[in-house]
Order: sequence, then C-alpha cells, then structure tokens
Amino acid sequence: IRSRLPNVGTTIFTVMSRMAQECGAINLSQGFPDFNAEDVLFERVAHWMRAGHNQYAQMAGMPALREAIAEKVEALYGAAYDVEREITVTAGATQALFTAVAALVHPGDEVIVFEPVYDSYAPAIELQGGKVVRLRLAAPDYRPDWTAVAAAITPRTRMIMINSPHNPTATVWSAADMAQLEALTRGTGIVIVSDEVYEHIVFDGAGHESCARHPELAARSLIVSSFGKTYHITGWKVGYVIGPAELMAEFRKVHQFNVFTVNTPVQLALADYMQDASRYLRLAAFYQAKRDFFTAAMAGSRFELLPSRGTYFQLARYGAISDMADTDFVEHLTREVGVAAIPVSAFFADGHDDGIIRFCFAKNEETLAAACEKLGRI
Amino acid sequence: IRSRLPNVGTTIFTVMSRMAQECGAINLSQGFPDFNAEDVLFERVAHWMRAGHNQYAQMAGMPALREAIAEKVEALYGAAYDVEREITVTAGATQALFTAVAALVHPGDEVIVFEPVYDSYAPAIELQGGKVVRLRLAAPDYRPDWTAVAAAITPRTRMIMINSPHNPTATVWSAADMAQLEALTRGTGIVIVSDEVYEHIVFDGAGHESCARHPELAARSLIVSSFGKTYHITGWKVGYVIGPAELMAEFRKVHQFNVFTVNTPVQLALADYMQDASRYLRLAAFYQAKRDFFTAAMAGSRFELLPSRGTYFQLARYGAISDMADTDFVEHLTREVGVAAIPVSAFFADGHDDGIIRFCFAKNEETLAAACEKLGRI
Ligand SMILES: CSCCC(=O)C(=O)O
Ligand SMILES: CSCCC(=O)C(=O)O
Repeated sequence: IRSRLPNVGTTIFTVMSRMAQECGAINLSQGFPDFNAEDVLFERVAHWMRAGHNQYAQMAGMPALREAIAEKVEALYGAAYDVEREITVTAGATQALFTAVAALVHPGDEVIVFEPVYDSYAPAIELQGGKVVRLRLAAPDYRPDWTAVAAAITPRTRMIMINSPHNPTATVWSAADMAQLEALTRGTGIVIVSDEVYEHIVFDGAGHESCARHPELAARSLIVSSFGKTYHITGWKVGYVIGPAELMAEFRKVHQFNVFTVNTPVQLALADYMQDASRYLRLAAFYQAKRDFFTAAMAGSRFELLPSRGTYFQLARYGAISDMADTDFVEHLTREVGVAAIPVSAFFADGHDDGIIRFCFAKNEETLAAACEKLGRI
Repeated sequence: IRSRLPNVGTTIFTVMSRMAQECGAINLSQGFPDFNAEDVLFERVAHWMRAGHNQYAQMAGMPALREAIAEKVEALYGAAYDVEREITVTAGATQALFTAVAALVHPGDEVIVFEPVYDSYAPAIELQGGKVVRLRLAAPDYRPDWTAVAAAITPRTRMIMINSPHNPTATVWSAADMAQLEALTRGTGIVIVSDEVYEHIVFDGAGHESCARHPELAARSLIVSSFGKTYHITGWKVGYVIGPAELMAEFRKVHQFNVFTVNTPVQLALADYMQDASRYLRLAAFYQAKRDFFTAAMAGSRFELLPSRGTYFQLARYGAISDMADTDFVEHLTREVGVAAIPVSAFFADGHDDGIIRFCFAKNEETLAAACEKLGRI
C-alpha cells in the first residue's frame, strides 16, 4: 500500500489523551470539558427521539437549526445568511474544514496557513494535492505579519485558512487584522476559510472579530463553528459552516457524498437549546473565570504563562524547569508529574520547539487545583 | 470558482424527498423507515448523556461498540477482527466509503464500480483524481459478468467497490460470485471496498455473503456497514468499517482529519443495544414480510415487479403504463399520482434508462397500502 499521507501519524490529541489515561494523569492535553452539559439539552434529544425524528435530516441540516444559526449570526455580527442556501450543518467543525478544502482546493493550488496550526489543516490540503504555504507566528505574541502574507500570495493562492480565537496560542485577531486580510485579498479569487470554533470564548471584554462582521471579506469566506465547544458537548460532533451561496453550493457537492447529513434528533435539540441566547453569551465570563483561577493557581509555579485572550487554552514556557524538547517534557509531565499537556511543536510541520506547552483549562476548579498543585511542586 | 465536481448536482435522494414533501406525496423514494426505533434505544442514549459521556470518543470509536461489532462479525461470519486495530466507527456508511476512497485512491488510479451504482461512489473517486471504470449490470438479473471484470482489471486498478445486497437492484451476490472476485484479485494489490449496509436484510433464507466469510478476500477488503439501516435510525448517521490493520491504518489517517470521531453517547447506546442479537437477526423476516405485503398489494397494478432478494427496495417496470423517461415518470408519479419513487437512471453515469424505477418498502403497512392503492389506480 502506498500511503496518501505518508508523513501523518496519529493525531497528537489521541496520543496524549491515551497516555494520560494509561498513566492515570490529570488530562489537560486534548481540549474538552470535564463537566457535563445541562440535562435540559439531553431531555430535548430524548424528546425528539421518542417523537420519531430519527431518519435522515435534510442534507444541509434541519431547517430549525439553520434558522437558529442565522438568528445568532445576525444578532452577534449583523450579517444576514440565507437559511436555504448559505448555512450547512456538519459532523463537527473538523468535517467542515476538511470538506471546505476538498470542495475548493484543486491539485497544485496553494493554501496559506499560519503556524502553529491545528493539525488537521495541512493533511486536508495535501490530500487534495494542494500545496501548504506556512507563515510562522512567532512567540510570545504570535502576531500575523501582514507584509509576509502579502509576499506569500501568488496567482496560485486559492485559499487562506485562519483561526481566531487561536488554538493553540490563545491569541485573538483584531479588527485591524481583518482589515488587512480584506485589503490583501480584495479583487482576488482567494477564499478565506475562517475557523471560529471559539467564537464565544473571548476574554477581557474584547469582541470576537468574526469574518461575518466584515461584509466584503465575508463575501469570500466560509466560516466554521462548533456546537461542541460552545455547549460542552465535544463528543456529539456537530458544527456548521456559513458562507455565500456560490461557495456553499460547492461545499454541499462534497458534503452530500462525505457525511450526507448529521444526527437529526441532536440537531432538533440544539435548535431548541439555542433559543436561549444567554447559553452562549455567558460562555466568555464562564471560561474567563477558569482562566483566572488557573493563572492564580499557577502563580507559585516555575512555569511562565503566556497571555490567554480567548479559547480554553493556556500556553506556558517551562524553560526555568527543563531544557528537554517539548515532546519529551509533556511525556515527563504525564508520566512523572501526573498532568498531561500538548507540546506546541506538534502544531509546526518542522517540529519547531520554543519550549512552550499548552494546557486546557476547560475543567472543574477541583481538577485545575489538583493539576496546579502537582505542577507547582516541580 | 472552478468546481471540483463540475458534473455533480444535488443527490437524487434529496431531490425526490423534497419533491415528495412539496407535493404531499407518499415518499417511497429515499430509503428510510417511516416507523420508529425502540424506546429502549433512546433511553440508553439519554442515560449515557446524563451520565456525562458527552466528550470526544476515542478516534476509532468507543471500545464497547467496537467489541460488540467484533462479536457480531465473529458470530455471523466466523471472522476475527482486532478491536484495537481493525474496526473503526464512522459517521455513517457514506463517510466510511468516502474516507476509504480518499485514503487509498491516488490520482490516476482506476476504481471499478458496477452500474447501477450508488450515487456517492463516483464523485468520491473523481474528487481524489481517480478514474471510475464502470461495468454494467443488465436488467432484469443484474448479474456481474466476471469475464468483463477480468478484462477491466489493469495494472492501474487500485480498488473494486462492491455492494451486496445491492441498492437499487435488490439483488444479492452468491458464494460463487465471491469466489470469482477472490480469484480475479488474488496476488494483485487491489483493495475491495464492500458496501454491506443491508447485510441483515437478505430474503428467502439465503445467507449474506459477506467478504468477511472469505478470509483471503477479507485480507484485502474494507467492509462497510450501517447502524442506520439495521436499527431504523438512518438519521443518526453511525456506521462502521472493518478491515485488516494495514488498510485500517491508512483509513484512520484520513478519518481522524475528516470527522475525527462519532457521537459518544450514541455509540455507547448502540453498544448496549447490540447485546441482544435478535435485534438484527429478526430484520430479514421483518422486511421480507413488508416485501411480500408490497408485492401482494401491487399485484393488481400495471407495474411489473422485479425480484427483490434483499435490501428494502423493490424495482418495478412501468412500460405497460408509459414510455416516459424514468425521471419524468417519477415526477409524474409524485405530482399526479401522489407516490414518490427513484428513477434507476440516476444510478448510471450516462442516464441509461430501462424504464425501471425503485420503491422503498421500509414503511408501515398502512403507508404501503395507501401507496399501492394509488399506484394500482393508474
Ligand atoms: C479533535 S481532538 C482535539 C480537540 C482540540 O481541538 C484540541 O485539543 O486542540
Ligand atoms: C443518503 S440518502 C439515501 C438513502 C439511501 O441509501 C437510498 O435511498 O438509496
């Protein structure tokens, strides 16, 4: 067998979660909450199941859920998306990203990504014969260099994949960043794929700069979001993509032959659950309190925390503790200290290593306290 | 935008279900039951949700479900699959087929399919730059011509996609067919992708000839099945793929970046539900009774029914009624008669039309009786 992805192993999130489980370590590696979602959401799923809504949803998603998404996007970002033609429910945000690339990137096309980059982007591009063009964001600020972006754009550039709030760096892009992106791509055929799965988790009163806020940019963007991140149900695998009808038509051509549709009763339950906007509006304060708790609990440790402005992740330098490679250091942490984390080098194609690791603070305070106690003892 | 699938429109199943709904027609087009699954299954889902199992499943699927699958396959087909390395839970069978093709077909590779062919196969192949090699099964028997298969195999043949019980023709392959396939592919690098989603729906006492029954063939096969078809939950979008570790490793490389995982509480509920084997063992008799009911109710009509040996589909010739193209005839049936069906030409790349349409009989007897009453009046 000749592999289509010869350089790909098992995703770092699976590797680290498995190691955490084997060692009985506290798992601050893979990003997911250790607390449960609300019973009312489960009751809605059970309701729709018992009521007999268990057969194929419409290919683009249940209309009730697409309407709820349209209302949210309009309320938050002032953008109107057509429920029939511009919104598609997906089997998680990862499937939306994969499908967007498969639908739009031709062999030989170039796709610009920003490193450190989520580990699914490059394989999705390479599988379609696309060329990954990597622009590096440098620690500790991880700011995009717009001059470098301008220089990287060629006639072959088909797509730019962006992600704010950003995993793993916990940085957020500003309105000025979006204006730069808009200016650089104006009049080109470049499509923006904007991974906004942490859209509701932006801290310190800053607003989320969705592409949807910028009409000219939005006209050439597919915007991806996730119910898993927003409603503490990462294991349900439901997300969505919004974008102009012309791009969405191409997206759906592939979507219909990839997963076709998404769990019907879950979609109906999410449509019900979305009716109360406070459920996503309160998320920023909820996670900001966790960030602050984690920061305070780590204050006495020898880790140096980088700023976390969004997402439920926190980067930390461990140079004062060890000069190990970050992959070795997280293994050491997991096996010897009893806390699992993610090495940031896993987000670089060449394994670039700044001695920085990522913790997930989407955990109960008891979990965070226990982890910080262990980390503080180093 | 240059389309990656310029010749692809909206899948026929979406088109016909939409038309059925618009016209208030009885929908015997897209294949799904109009009766509900059992409450006990829903209760298990609610149980696992309330118990807090709502975060990412293991990438390959929840161990409990993979174990239940392994036990079933061993019990039914006498084949041992390794739970850790040879079974992966997928977001439906369609995603399994799409991912298998993406993981194994390189640009320029040839993939043999049998027409009439399910409408997702060819676009999945073409998207990866593969060449679709179509072998025609001829009405009314739709038997594979093994001499033609032998002649179609070239050094570029990378994969053969098969499907028994077969959608849309409701034919099943025999042990002799499997022996032919085994002989023709022995010693080649050809991978078999075997779509066995109707494995539990084989009529008249015939056994299902799973690839898994044929060890030498199974050693180069990815076998795909579906919980949706088996447990009357087509809208839950859960299926699985089994195959040798070497092929599965490649499958998972793509799977992890496509959907990553599948709904956790649903997987756990299915693992519970699978413990009672009678739930899938009774399926053949259950659907055979529906086939017989439908056949009897259509006896007085001017449709000529072809044999249905498996699946929940039934082909019918309408030559005694009309010489319309089958796409026009199903539109006429839907709009004027009030019964929706699928034109079999939709399963041929060149629209080959034998004047045959497909009905789905996975319906309550009242639904079937009402439909047959309308169809009998023509
Ligand atoms: C798909 S598992 C990874 C979850 C996640 O987004 C992360 O940990 O970065
Ligand atoms: C994916 S919708 C189609 C369902 C089905 O398998 C069929 O009707 O043939």
